[in-house]
Amino acid sequence: MEENLPPRIDEDGEPATTRRVVSEGAEKWLRRPIPCLDHGYVYLVDYLGNDRSIAQAARVSYGKGTKKVSEDPGLIRRLYRDVHTGPFEMVEFKFHAKMPIFVARQWIRHRTANVNEYSGRYSVMSDDFYIPDPGTLRKQSKSNKQGRDEELSPEQKQFVLDLLLSEYDQQRKDYGRLLKIDLAKELARIHLSVANYTEWYWKIDLHNLMHFLRLRLAPDAQYEIRVFAEAMARIVKDAVPVAFGAFEDYRSNAMSLSRMEIEFVRDHEHAWPMPKDLAFAILRERLGNKTETDGAVAKLQRLGLVTA
Amino acid sequence: MEENLPPRIDEDGEPATTRRVVSEGAEKWLRRPIPCLDHGYVYLVDYLGNDRSIAQAARVSYGKGTKKVSEDPGLIRRLYRDVHTGPFEMVEFKFHAKMPIFVARQWIRHRTANVNEYSGRYSVMSDDFYIPDPGTLRKQSKSNKQGRDEELSPEQKQFVLDLLLSEYDQQRKDYGRLLKIDLAKELARIHLSVANYTEWYWKIDLHNLMHFLRLRLAPDAQYEIRVFAEAMARIVKDAVPVAFGAFEDYRSNAMSLSRMEIEFVRDHEHAWPMPKDLAFAILRERLGNKTETDGAVAKLQRLGLVTA
Amino acid sequence: MEENLPPRIDEDGEPATTRRVVSEGAEKWLRRPIPCLDHGYVYLVDYLGNDRSIAQAARVSYGKGTKKVSEDPGLIRRLYRDVHTGPFEMVEFKFHAKMPIFVARQWIRHRTANVNEYSGRYSVMSDDFYIPDPGTLRKQSKSNKQGRDEELSPEQKQFVLDLLLSEYDQQRKDYGRLLKIDLAKELARIHLSVANYTEWYWKIDLHNLMHFLRLRLAPDAQYEIRVFAEAMARIVKDAVPVAFGAFEDYRSNAMSLSRMEIEFVRDHEHAWPMPKDLAFAILRERLGNKTETDGAVAKLQRLGLVTA
Amino acid sequence: MEENLPPRIDEDGEPATTRRVVSEGAEKWLRRPIPCLDHGYVYLVDYLGNDRSIAQAARVSYGKGTKKVSEDPGLIRRLYRDVHTGPFEMVEFKFHAKMPIFVARQWIRHRTANVNEYSGRYSVMSDDFYIPDPGTLRKQSKSNKQGRDEELSPEQKQFVLDLLLSEYDQQRKDYGRLLKIDLAKELARIHLSVANYTEWYWKIDLHNLMHFLRLRLAPDAQYEIRVFAEAMARIVKDAVPVAFGAFEDYRSNAMSLSRMEIEFVRDHEHAWPMPKDLAFAILRERLGNKTETDGAVAKLQRLGLVTA
Repeated sequence: MEENLPPRIDEDGEPATTRRVVSEGAEKWLRRPIPCLDHGYVYLVDYLGNDRSIAQAARVSYGKGTKKVSEDPGLIRRLYRDVHTGPFEMVEFKFHAKMPIFVARQWIRHRTANVNEYSGRYSVMSDDFYIPDPGTLRKQSKSNKQGRDEELSPEQKQFVLDLLLSEYDQQRKDYGRLLKIDLAKELARIHLSVANYTEWYWKIDLHNLMHFLRLRLAPDAQYEIRVFAEAMARIVKDAVPVAFGAFEDYRSNAMSLSRMEIEFVRDHEHAWPMPKDLAFAILRERLGNKTETDGAVAKLQRLGLVTA
Repeated sequence: MEENLPPRIDEDGEPATTRRVVSEGAEKWLRRPIPCLDHGYVYLVDYLGNDRSIAQAARVSYGKGTKKVSEDPGLIRRLYRDVHTGPFEMVEFKFHAKMPIFVARQWIRHRTANVNEYSGRYSVMSDDFYIPDPGTLRKQSKSNKQGRDEELSPEQKQFVLDLLLSEYDQQRKDYGRLLKIDLAKELARIHLSVANYTEWYWKIDLHNLMHFLRLRLAPDAQYEIRVFAEAMARIVKDAVPVAFGAFEDYRSNAMSLSRMEIEFVRDHEHAWPMPKDLAFAILRERLGNKTETDGAVAKLQRLGLVTA
Repeated sequence: MEENLPPRIDEDGEPATTRRVVSEGAEKWLRRPIPCLDHGYVYLVDYLGNDRSIAQAARVSYGKGTKKVSEDPGLIRRLYRDVHTGPFEMVEFKFHAKMPIFVARQWIRHRTANVNEYSGRYSVMSDDFYIPDPGTLRKQSKSNKQGRDEELSPEQKQFVLDLLLSEYDQQRKDYGRLLKIDLAKELARIHLSVANYTEWYWKIDLHNLMHFLRLRLAPDAQYEIRVFAEAMARIVKDAVPVAFGAFEDYRSNAMSLSRMEIEFVRDHEHAWPMPKDLAFAILRERLGNKTETDGAVAKLQRLGLVTA
Repeated sequence: MEENLPPRIDEDGEPATTRRVVSEGAEKWLRRPIPCLDHGYVYLVDYLGNDRSIAQAARVSYGKGTKKVSEDPGLIRRLYRDVHTGPFEMVEFKFHAKMPIFVARQWIRHRTANVNEYSGRYSVMSDDFYIPDPGTLRKQSKSNKQGRDEELSPEQKQFVLDLLLSEYDQQRKDYGRLLKIDLAKELARIHLSVANYTEWYWKIDLHNLMHFLRLRLAPDAQYEIRVFAEAMARIVKDAVPVAFGAFEDYRSNAMSLSRMEIEFVRDHEHAWPMPKDLAFAILRERLGNKTETDGAVAKLQRLGLVTA
């Protein structure tokens, strides 16, 4: 993964003295890239605040009061549970990431962040193009119109990889030809694919980052962006362990029951666990919709209220 | 409530022809104020879009496809369920509201909106000050540090009302005195209380409005802002009935179970309904925290899994 | 340009009655696409408000006051001049646009807007790829690292066009091959270029739209996004003519003089017009920087204070 | 000013080691309050980044390139000049401020920031109320409907101060009475004035902070918020001296000339300096508006093109 490292990783490395609050967990991730996909990475450039900052910000609302560090975790978890999101905005992270353009396009849909992206108008685009790992080459999912299902056959995989290599090779060559006749860079790159790598600085507060992580760590997120979300989650977990624990317990591993699902449970109070087929039939009748019924049954199974 | 009406309510009243989509439910609320508290109101100034707009926006993502109006409700509900919030941002509402300053201060914490507020630097502040209805004069809640509990005694209520009337009377008189010696308006108003009424235009998209409503319709919102949230909810419910129904079923009447609560249900699968004391004891042990345990028990009671 | 029309342009065409304010200038642009580049377009889907809405919103700040329609233009222009941007946020536009992905990538950097984009995970990507008009095929600018300069030779142009046609043809064919073996759509599209067309709904308030237009109508914006900005500017100019006139007079055709430029003019008060070489020499000495000096001289020439 | 210090100023004081970039200028302001008005203050709680961070973020766009620290200032100034605001969003400041509620109400209109405010629903409001310094007690301005003009007479000043002291005394006493009968805190505070002090944590990126400063350092900002803007400007100037210098040269001390003003200068190229009366007469004719003409003449005087 040597060639994967960003060019300016080695600078600013000297420890310095500060009177700011420090997160030991964040410090150890500074300028330490986590490789993502075949040519990408993400690393922490800078951060502001730690778990204690969240508690301190909350205490401004409450006036002078409990201040012991030992009381921070309980307070932070309560804030998260009660959807008091303000204090979580008081921590900030700045990342440097390199990723395929199609990943960047999904990523930037999260608007509450600051971005500085590499410019193909100004600079020559990267030579790197994304080749999926063979294990991730899968068929279109039938149940989920934006997902993947079973793996391709070995022959099909080889076909895809050969095709991509050939495409990228042609694109690279053509880019060189267009630059050679001095076509403006902003035009010379338009035939390059969304598998081409770009990079950016991305700065975001913890509240909005957790919202990003919830969506992009989810199983229905595209695999290629999930890899970056997982890398950032590792860093955030070390940087603000209490806040991240609250996020896991009350958000990413939580479950939302709809009004109809709540009523279904209440209406059948002695019937647990209910056979799956029966639950499906009743819910299908009530919800009138197969997708929603499947989702409801899956939740009730996770709760042990419906048989597997 | 006559004196409660805003000054420019009567203009622009003539029906006109448009090629835009129309919401019949919204049309009937245009420039029709709903009185709120003793001197306040909220009314719909303008709107953009309707339920169909939400479905149409979503279909841009899906390309050419299902287009029958009869398929809109199912699509809108699915979007809401799957947290595809984008299409709900494609509908917009503009309100004119008049409210006490302390309500405005809570309201404006919702940042994703456009605001034009009355200016006490430029214009003379309103004569109106908020006097609570006697039925809402309640003691400080012990369990909820930011809530109210049982009613004051009749004598205490009279004491409060007299005190407020006297305060407001003094503030009004002093404001007149300061204006009379021609003190700059921006200074002459600083002794006026946060019960003084202000007004503004407030424009927001449906997604962010539903987020506002979820927080401000909740029982722990201060009563005085809840009154305005309820008024706007009536308008929104008529303007986009399908989207509002989804909001009610999947959000405001939904329930979120934490990882620990899910595990508790799964670990006790044959025990339902469980006696409340037992559930409390087990959960208290697991959660280590009384407030969280109370909340968990209340949820399980609502589900009929724990006895009342 | 027939094939250029969006699929759902014909629906919702019946005029309806509304009690909302109407902009006649906006009405005539509803669902009337303006072709942009070879396969793109932009059209107005919906709007909220008109010039009068801006004045009305401002008057909320001022309390009861001047209300004659004839006074609106003066008020709107003063608001713009004084950077009171709030009232301009009270007008909203919703567009449907189809554009190459590289244009969409620049466009989406404007974060204060609502977006619903076509999804290549869910749907088959468009067959359309952007081929520049030969007149726009130009060399890399030497002075502006992100711009274009003189035209390519006819032979070079032919070379570029042939290369692009061949590239796109290959990409289209390969996309078909990958879909045929049923590779998940979200992977089958990664070799497609940023010249491939996408489309979206884009909703934005007038203040932020004018900010977008200022940046994207500027000569240093990439030509391909400028085409879309110009199309939207035509629509906005008709929809809110007074506000757009203020934008032109006080923003897009205005000039900002730096502290140093102001001091230069003040220090040489009797010397106008100054010969260009002399002005350059003095400013170069003061500013210490060729790019900034060139810019300063150009501004002073536009003012007639320096000879051409 | 001793009593003016915030309660938690003394904690977290120990210097620590960090691998983050450090701003020496920011370090010296950490937890060092600047008194503002009679009971307020603002101090720096935390920060992220320094001048070098701005240059580094910009270089991500340009790819590998110039990296010498000595080249940072030129790059930062060029970014600012060219309105490339992205890199300035890569620096963040967190402040703790205490201010009268009417100041907080103007302050919070800047939406692109994170806020945690003291809660009068949860905690007892401060005893502090703002008494203006006698020198700031001025009459309503005639020319500027939201400004101040000449000073009040000594007798009038005494009248105002006595009135305010008496008002605040009554409000404080009444607050005590309402708390004593245990009225819910969220109601007991509604008669308290907007001169009552509140406090908050406020976190914002440098780009948006400079926008705040431009508006709130301006002469037409209310004096009481300008005091806080000036205090923060001192801190920012030390924290990011190069960026702040660019802000001063290209923004706060810059001048914008409208299309009409540019044309006026160009049309009279040999006439400088022009007598004020003549300039006024010509511009009045062209602009048709006294306020705008006054503004234009003042700009031309500042440029030395019109006599004083």
